Amino acid sequence: MDNMMLAYYAAGAGALALLFALFTLSSVLKEDMGTPKMREISEAIHEGAMAFLNRQYKTLIPFVVIIFILLYGAKFFVEGGEHLPVGGTSAISFLVGAVLSAVAGYIGMTSTTKANARTTEAARSHGMAKALNVSFRAGAVMGLSVAGLGLLGVSVLYIVFQSPLVINSFAFGASAIAFFARIGGGIYTKAADVGADLVGKVEAGIPEDDPRNPAVIADNVGDNVGDTAGMGADLFESYAATTIAAMLIGNTLFGFTGIIFPLLVGAIGIIASIIGTFFVRTSEDGNPQAALNVGLWSTNVMTAVGVYFLANTLFAEQGIGFGVFMAVLAGLIVNVAVGYLTEMYTGAGKPAVNRIAEASKSGPATNVIHGLAVGMESTVLPMLVFAAAIYFSFWAVGSASPPDKAGLWAIYGIAMAAMGMLSTAGMVVAMDSFGPVADNAGGIAEMAELPPEVRVKTDKLDAVGNTTAAIAKGFAIGSAALTALALFSAYVDGVKHKFADVLPGGEFIVNLTEPMVLVGLFIGGAVPFLVGAQTMRAVGEAAFGMVEEVRRQFREIPGLLEGKPGAKADYARCVDIATRSAIAKMIAPGIVAVSAPILVGFLLGAKALAGFLAGLTCVGVLLALFLANAGGAWDNAKKWIEQGNLGGKKSDPHKAAVVGDTVGDPCKDTSGPAMNPLIKVAGTISLILGPLLTRL
Amino acid sequence: MDNMMLAYYAAGAGALALLFALFTLSSVLKEDMGTPKMREISEAIHEGAMAFLNRQYKTLIPFVVIIFILLYGAKFFVEGGEHLPVGGTSAISFLVGAVLSAVAGYIGMTSTTKANARTTEAARSHGMAKALNVSFRAGAVMGLSVAGLGLLGVSVLYIVFQSPLVINSFAFGASAIAFFARIGGGIYTKAADVGADLVGKVEAGIPEDDPRNPAVIADNVGDNVGDTAGMGADLFESYAATTIAAMLIGNTLFGFTGIIFPLLVGAIGIIASIIGTFFVRTSEDGNPQAALNVGLWSTNVMTAVGVYFLANTLFAEQGIGFGVFMAVLAGLIVNVAVGYLTEMYTGAGKPAVNRIAEASKSGPATNVIHGLAVGMESTVLPMLVFAAAIYFSFWAVGSASPPDKAGLWAIYGIAMAAMGMLSTAGMVVAMDSFGPVADNAGGIAEMAELPPEVRVKTDKLDAVGNTTAAIAKGFAIGSAALTALALFSAYVDGVKHKFADVLPGGEFIVNLTEPMVLVGLFIGGAVPFLVGAQTMRAVGEAAFGMVEEVRRQFREIPGLLEGKPGAKADYARCVDIATRSAIAKMIAPGIVAVSAPILVGFLLGAKALAGFLAGLTCVGVLLALFLANAGGAWDNAKKWIEQGNLGGKKSDPHKAAVVGDTVGDPCKDTSGPAMNPLIKVAGTISLILGPLLTRL
Repeated sequence: MDNMMLAYYAAGAGALALLFALFTLSSVLKEDMGTPKMREISEAIHEGAMAFLNRQYKTLIPFVVIIFILLYGAKFFVEGGEHLPVGGTSAISFLVGAVLSAVAGYIGMTSTTKANARTTEAARSHGMAKALNVSFRAGAVMGLSVAGLGLLGVSVLYIVFQSPLVINSFAFGASAIAFFARIGGGIYTKAADVGADLVGKVEAGIPEDDPRNPAVIADNVGDNVGDTAGMGADLFESYAATTIAAMLIGNTLFGFTGIIFPLLVGAIGIIASIIGTFFVRTSEDGNPQAALNVGLWSTNVMTAVGVYFLANTLFAEQGIGFGVFMAVLAGLIVNVAVGYLTEMYTGAGKPAVNRIAEASKSGPATNVIHGLAVGMESTVLPMLVFAAAIYFSFWAVGSASPPDKAGLWAIYGIAMAAMGMLSTAGMVVAMDSFGPVADNAGGIAEMAELPPEVRVKTDKLDAVGNTTAAIAKGFAIGSAALTALALFSAYVDGVKHKFADVLPGGEFIVNLTEPMVLVGLFIGGAVPFLVGAQTMRAVGEAAFGMVEEVRRQFREIPGLLEGKPGAKADYARCVDIATRSAIAKMIAPGIVAVSAPILVGFLLGAKALAGFLAGLTCVGVLLALFLANAGGAWDNAKKWIEQGNLGGKKSDPHKAAVVGDTVGDPCKDTSGPAMNPLIKVAGTISLILGPLLTRL
Repeated sequence: MDNMMLAYYAAGAGALALLFALFTLSSVLKEDMGTPKMREISEAIHEGAMAFLNRQYKTLIPFVVIIFILLYGAKFFVEGGEHLPVGGTSAISFLVGAVLSAVAGYIGMTSTTKANARTTEAARSHGMAKALNVSFRAGAVMGLSVAGLGLLGVSVLYIVFQSPLVINSFAFGASAIAFFARIGGGIYTKAADVGADLVGKVEAGIPEDDPRNPAVIADNVGDNVGDTAGMGADLFESYAATTIAAMLIGNTLFGFTGIIFPLLVGAIGIIASIIGTFFVRTSEDGNPQAALNVGLWSTNVMTAVGVYFLANTLFAEQGIGFGVFMAVLAGLIVNVAVGYLTEMYTGAGKPAVNRIAEASKSGPATNVIHGLAVGMESTVLPMLVFAAAIYFSFWAVGSASPPDKAGLWAIYGIAMAAMGMLSTAGMVVAMDSFGPVADNAGGIAEMAELPPEVRVKTDKLDAVGNTTAAIAKGFAIGSAALTALALFSAYVDGVKHKFADVLPGGEFIVNLTEPMVLVGLFIGGAVPFLVGAQTMRAVGEAAFGMVEEVRRQFREIPGLLEGKPGAKADYARCVDIATRSAIAKMIAPGIVAVSAPILVGFLLGAKALAGFLAGLTCVGVLLALFLANAGGAWDNAKKWIEQGNLGGKKSDPHKAAVVGDTVGDPCKDTSGPAMNPLIKVAGTISLILGPLLTRL
């Protein structure tokens, strides 16, 4: 099987997803935006979000240019540079990866920020079913852009350059942007949120989303730049990196078949996701969660069936079709399992969350202690799931292989599990992006002072959005873990080729009993803690600036707090402050993330870098789970009390729970999500570094 | 060099330390105990502490008996059982390790709990210098018992059984007890502390150590069972495990010389520690911290000089004397460096701590967020120090070795670094144990209503005790890390022998690219989070019980809160509640710690267990640093505010800082310290398991 036509099919599927996304976007834009007031608010949010994206990407231009020049110039400095992942083609791949990540961000943000008022209007004029329809279609635009651009980019670069090695840089471009998008978006969203809540809700005592609150637009912008743009960039990166890692490993093991298979798995997943979106519909008093579940499950099943036939056809010669299919299936199952476990530890009303709520009775300290305990405990079962997936996917491919190839071929398994998980990214991102739209729609209903029954409908969708966000968070962490492992395997493969003549038996062995591997493991393990500290502190400082500004406006703008006509908050200034501080504070963690693997690789060698990747992945995944789940559990413990339990709002337990929730904010929305791109960016850099390193 | 006499020297040094400890104890007991009231309080604390130890060890008897039988019986079930670390001799070694750990606990606790009132009296009748003298001598009893019993036990068992393999179980016995002592003591101390503070200080508004507080005796007992008995057992374990790991590796590489060298390094360290204690003296208005520093530095220097000559003599034939000396020196330097870094992140008035204090201005949530950030950041430099120590110690021995041996012999380096660090354990534990004595002495001054100037003197010592406790905490974590790495090397060595005929080239390679190693890494990484969650929750629950009881007594005992004569708090009941809940709650984490490596080893094989140990060590050390330093920083941020900064006591920032301090309590005194024995117990179990495993 050596038919380049197959690569065109994959590119075609990517293009199809993109067309479908653009078509869906135009259909969303045809919906009615409602009253002038609604339109005005929506436009303010849209402008704020676009201003942030513009400034963020503008800030990153010098960074992208420097890396471009480095990649291009490196071929003159390393021996055999033409056959390494450096030079003009690599530099172009890098640029394409970075640009497509940004394009996905722009399309998705346009879609979600333009759909918010339209969702409110749909809820007002037609009802909940129509509102779900509008908001989910807006999310689908983001989801299918992410998956479509990912698959299209990788396929076209492969068709043009005909080498999986060269397109490594595509993944690096995607991850570099993703890291900044995640961190910048994470800082923005929490600075705005804390600023709006602390001064508005707590100090001034005005409700959530009240138009008198100067930070209210920034807060709504934050939901988009954090949950939509950040998550989208994150999964775009996972998608690109996994596909490329699978192609690299596949090329070594099976030649063209090994390269094309991951591309076609992506194509199947994308088509399944497109079809899956049509299953998301509900009646007026139906359950929107059930509708989304039907969409997700149908996508999973269609993908599995498609991959079953594809694997058995492509790998007929090697006889490992069923094994490969099982590995892909393992990835799909990890997705479901991690989502379930996330819900188990963070869902409102679950025992773990209720324990935190109960602990609020003895004050904020015990609330925080129990939240930390829940977060810690919540890492254990997902880690066992990942361990099982590693074992099973190796075993599935290995045991199907001829005995003399089993050890060698088994390594393809982990890449296939990652590929399986990510093939449905289109659908998962669609479900995730729908959340901020529903959230914003509720905010607009409040700010535009619509009748309360509109808010009831959007709240129903918003509640579902919280669950899908939890599922997507689990998906992002799980896919980051599997992607990192696939990148690790690909890195080892790259080093093996580079040092083939000096390695005993031609094998690159990362032996934990060697000092350099242990040194790398310890350094790699520390990096997630460093980035966690940096991002957590960044939120604290950015929020502080926002709190000062909101307080200033309430103090200095006459009549604002009393709601006198004519007294108007200066929303733009708050948006500007959040934007500036988020962008200023994303730089330092970015430097750590990019420079740490480079320093370890060049100063300590290839073995240390391998240990580094293992330590970084293990600890990064643990911290990601710990921070995300602790934050989610604190959030829902507070919500559970607000539903009237333990004295309800304004009671002492509620005050204690608010403290926990505030602690959890940077954990779950900034530091935790930063771990995913952190471990992936190290992996994609290492893929490029591997063949350039000068010592083992 | 093959002279068994040298082992007698080591045993002699151990016996000497023990005699010196008992002699010092009797001299401490000759000091005056002061007024009948002081005597009464001291005896209550002593009785409470002994009751806890009795109940704790009694609870552990069935556990010890079961392991004894398993070890003894295992020889009938495994092939070649007579030549494996199982059977009668191993079972006896295990028992001796467990019993000596308990003996060290009893001696040390007797000393510190009998010295508290004597220190108060010394401060009252003679002044601060004499009080330092009494309290430090009491600490020295603990320190020299730990080191002396450790060295004596290992040496005598070696003399009797003549095999380092058999005495593996000694380390296992010590670690099993240490794990329970650390966790039980940690839960006890925090339950009592939180109970005393939350109801006494916060709700009832009475001062610290007020005799009206029913939990006050339990609180003082807690200082002893947590800081003295727990820390002592922890370092006894590190001491035994490191010595034995060094002997095992040394035996493989250098035969008898490799076995005897660690024993003699221990002997030198003990003699240096004994001499060092004489340097700890100060004038009435001198600086007690300086006096302790002189003691520590003189011990370090004497040990280094002694080891220099010893290494050059014993390893003259191999020519690696200087390399071995450098590795030992690296261990001594790690000790100093980690202590310094601990102080940098947790010391009162340091920038990191002041940032937390400043953040208290915007409430408890920002205080907690900044504390988490400081804790995370504080892990980075120590991890780099450990990484440097790993690299340097391998390099030091390897580069001194003949080229064909370099790779092989270098592995001795890490064991030597661990040995160097632990050789001064006698002095470090002495400095650490002095703290609780000074703390208790202040409490007794308060409870016995002595004039305030007595409290001023004991407070001066108590402040120093906080610094030495921080140093000892750093020492405990650093030594646990190096011990775990030495145990890891010894485990690999053991597996190599067991599977010599099936391993390619006879080498046991722990290759991170193999699925089983990765699986082990992921599972091992999750275990510290699980134990962290269990212990944190245990404190929450135990403290809850204590809070209820203190509230009940204030409510039901007439006149207690008003301090009416005749109204007497029921101290014993609080002591009993703390004891019972601490012991009940130490069981579950204990089962996890002991069973996890056994399950991984037997179900997944030797490679998975190696990955497990690496993941557990890396993550365990990170969490130990994170939890201990975050807790220490929160504590000192609160103290800094209490010194009158940012509004001082009762201000809003102070209230916020109290929340952070309470969150930090279980972090720094229960969950954090639990990590050290956790990673060591896995290592010592694996040493025994290695030769018993049935699959790679």
